[in-house]
Amino acid sequence: MTDDQTIPDVADADDEAFGITDRVVSDVLQAIDDRNVEDISALLEPLHPADIAHLIELIDDRQRRELLTLWKGGLDGEILSELDERLREEIIASLAPAELADAVRDLDSDDVVDLVEYLDEEQQEAVLDALDPGDRVVVEQSLSYPEESAGRHMQVELVRAPEHWTVGDTIDFLRSDVVLPDQFYHIILVDPRLKAVGYVTLGRVLSHPRGTKLRDIMEDTFRTFHVEQDVEEVAQAINHYHMITAPVVDDDDRIVGVITIDDAMAFLEEEAEEDLLRLAGVGEGSLSDRVIETTKQRLPWLAVNLFTAIMASLVISLFEGTISSLVALAVLMPIVASMGGNAGTQSLTVAVRALATRDLTGSNVWRVIRREVLVGLINGMLFAVVMGIVGVVWFGSPMLGIVIGCAMVINMVVAGLAGTGVPIVLERMGVDPALASGAFVTTVTDIVGFFAFLGLAAIWLL
Amino acid sequence: MTDDQTIPDVADADDEAFGITDRVVSDVLQAIDDRNVEDISALLEPLHPADIAHLIELIDDRQRRELLTLWKGGLDGEILSELDERLREEIIASLAPAELADAVRDLDSDDVVDLVEYLDEEQQEAVLDALDPGDRVVVEQSLSYPEESAGRHMQVELVRAPEHWTVGDTIDFLRSDVVLPDQFYHIILVDPRLKAVGYVTLGRVLSHPRGTKLRDIMEDTFRTFHVEQDVEEVAQAINHYHMITAPVVDDDDRIVGVITIDDAMAFLEEEAEEDLLRLAGVGEGSLSDRVIETTKQRLPWLAVNLFTAIMASLVISLFEGTISSLVALAVLMPIVASMGGNAGTQSLTVAVRALATRDLTGSNVWRVIRREVLVGLINGMLFAVVMGIVGVVWFGSPMLGIVIGCAMVINMVVAGLAGTGVPIVLERMGVDPALASGAFVTTVTDIVGFFAFLGLAAIWLL
Repeated sequence: MTDDQTIPDVADADDEAFGITDRVVSDVLQAIDDRNVEDISALLEPLHPADIAHLIELIDDRQRRELLTLWKGGLDGEILSELDERLREEIIASLAPAELADAVRDLDSDDVVDLVEYLDEEQQEAVLDALDPGDRVVVEQSLSYPEESAGRHMQVELVRAPEHWTVGDTIDFLRSDVVLPDQFYHIILVDPRLKAVGYVTLGRVLSHPRGTKLRDIMEDTFRTFHVEQDVEEVAQAINHYHMITAPVVDDDDRIVGVITIDDAMAFLEEEAEEDLLRLAGVGEGSLSDRVIETTKQRLPWLAVNLFTAIMASLVISLFEGTISSLVALAVLMPIVASMGGNAGTQSLTVAVRALATRDLTGSNVWRVIRREVLVGLINGMLFAVVMGIVGVVWFGSPMLGIVIGCAMVINMVVAGLAGTGVPIVLERMGVDPALASGAFVTTVTDIVGFFAFLGLAAIWLL
Repeated sequence: MTDDQTIPDVADADDEAFGITDRVVSDVLQAIDDRNVEDISALLEPLHPADIAHLIELIDDRQRRELLTLWKGGLDGEILSELDERLREEIIASLAPAELADAVRDLDSDDVVDLVEYLDEEQQEAVLDALDPGDRVVVEQSLSYPEESAGRHMQVELVRAPEHWTVGDTIDFLRSDVVLPDQFYHIILVDPRLKAVGYVTLGRVLSHPRGTKLRDIMEDTFRTFHVEQDVEEVAQAINHYHMITAPVVDDDDRIVGVITIDDAMAFLEEEAEEDLLRLAGVGEGSLSDRVIETTKQRLPWLAVNLFTAIMASLVISLFEGTISSLVALAVLMPIVASMGGNAGTQSLTVAVRALATRDLTGSNVWRVIRREVLVGLINGMLFAVVMGIVGVVWFGSPMLGIVIGCAMVINMVVAGLAGTGVPIVLERMGVDPALASGAFVTTVTDIVGFFAFLGLAAIWLL
């Protein structure tokens, strides 16, 4: 363990419940430095593709290039599927078409689609050429559906059976030399026109006698989703209804694929991460991005913030005369703006999250807005009293205390209103509220905060 | 549709892909107003328990009380399980022990544990008394494991088989009158001492001849999790490795339960939500909380913010003399603090998220810190130039431009460093970085921003 000592032990990483340990990472790096291909293979081959992908993300650019050169044959489609998007594209771009084709041949259709959907045409063509003609048709079909649709992301490998079959028919069919998906948990029942009518869990098939009709052991509820439906909605439905797979149907209600729960889980995780990063003004981006990419990603948000900060400064400049008569105002004014900004961010985050999880709907929107405004009012009054006292004690002026207290109440009520109202309005306008609300709301609370505080001071104190 | 017109159509709610429509909500509310029990039952009974729970969350306190009084018999354990925690506790508290017992009798063990774990002793006793003695033992056993452990949240209903069994043995066993879980997707293989040795998917059992040994169609990889392991880690592992169920074992490696993927999905969603809300200074809390509860939840965060804002004001007050000689400083100083705060929040959010998803480990911590500092430096220099020009144009003073530019660079580098360093240090100290980082980082950027800007101004301008 001695050579581990130089690596800071951020999260007790050597003691982790799953995933690769820092120890494995440093052993692989050592093998890369030694250019020892055997050691690299011996270390990586026992690992799960998800862990190998994670290791590739953790190491730096130079190490990654050397690893991929030394361990060329090892990189398969499953590892590519697990990589984060930017690295995946970069690595795919570095592969010869034949290497790429080898890597993707054994993937399920939905994983192939994930890999190729953002490739340039030449690379996409190379991958498609490597597929069996049947698989190629399937992948091209999926690619013809809109981005982010269920059709684009569904797995077409599934097991369906005529609804009149018995358990025995089904078992005989499954034991025949038919090609089955790697993983399947349900059998989807179809009528003679291939319309999906219900599903049976494998547990029920296994636990009933051969003579039982599938129709009689079908689940009570059966929901299907249209190929063009937003895949995130399907993922939310899977979570909401505790489904294991969601059947996807075409315009004629014929079953064409399934969205599986493990993919749904990954979609929801991504979505939650995206909202979190957008709210913080980070946008896209992953930990393996380089300095220049990261700088570029963050720049637009900082530019928006600079613009709004200058707006707030313009408000302050209206009161230059007031401030020069009473410098205490310059000392205290950031407090009002900061409290409003914080209260606004609180309301905003709750509203954005509730919109994303569909907890904020037409039925409760007015009640939520009212609640946020009232919360702002009550907390505003409490902190107004505290700041009023601070103003009196610090600067010995009761009137200054009253001014800051009143400005605080006004700004926190506005914060509650803007924090809830802005994301709701943006959502109705079709703009992602996570993306744009933050800048709007803090602009409002900065401007209202400075204006209320300095304006009241100008009227009451001078 | 005419009576829907008064409800603002936040998210095209009537056109939703799943879940209840605003139309159903307003029909139920009408039926409640009419005290029409038949209509209520007719509207609610076809709905999925998750949708009924959602409806109960959407309506207001008075409507909810009336609904529950009118529709008493309808409320079953599945609906209770789907409700958010605060409402669930409130409704459980309003039920007589016998009603509660009726509601929970048919739930799986893990759902019963979820329902009772936070109940007071008397209510918990009432629920436990209602269970069959066998179920009661199971629930009490789960409750004996630590909160948030795999043992506390596992489902004990599972199917296991001796590893020497054949497909035929297994099918005969499943067809016998043994009690099976509602949902199961794997059969877990155990050795004679009940130690878990592997698992077989039901798809493989169904697709192999009766004579096939289970051992021969077992999956290659098999991971087990200890009963005391953090359930969130298990959920992350399920996501990472695309597992459908995670087997939970005791100290002797004997299988005692499973964590299912649908529960894992719910845990990860909750966890992502918690991080988001904590970063925004909201803490716990749900949309159905009342004004007073919400006010109380937000108060501590605002109090911390007030304290840090006052610290920043103290820094400003050190420079009262400087400001009164040059009021332009008061106008411009919030810009420096605001840009630093935003850049810090960007770094911070990326770091907190990466710690939560285990993407930030000992192997890449220095690289990430270096990257964030460099990004701060580059963006700082870009905005320094912009603000320098703004300073010159607005106030006609090149030196003022230089001061604000330098302060901007300093503050944005510090923002990158603090935004990454603070969450990493908090994580190592065992404090949730999502909970505490925000306040620390903005305090640092406020103080550094004001100090650098006003300090440099005092030295260079006066």
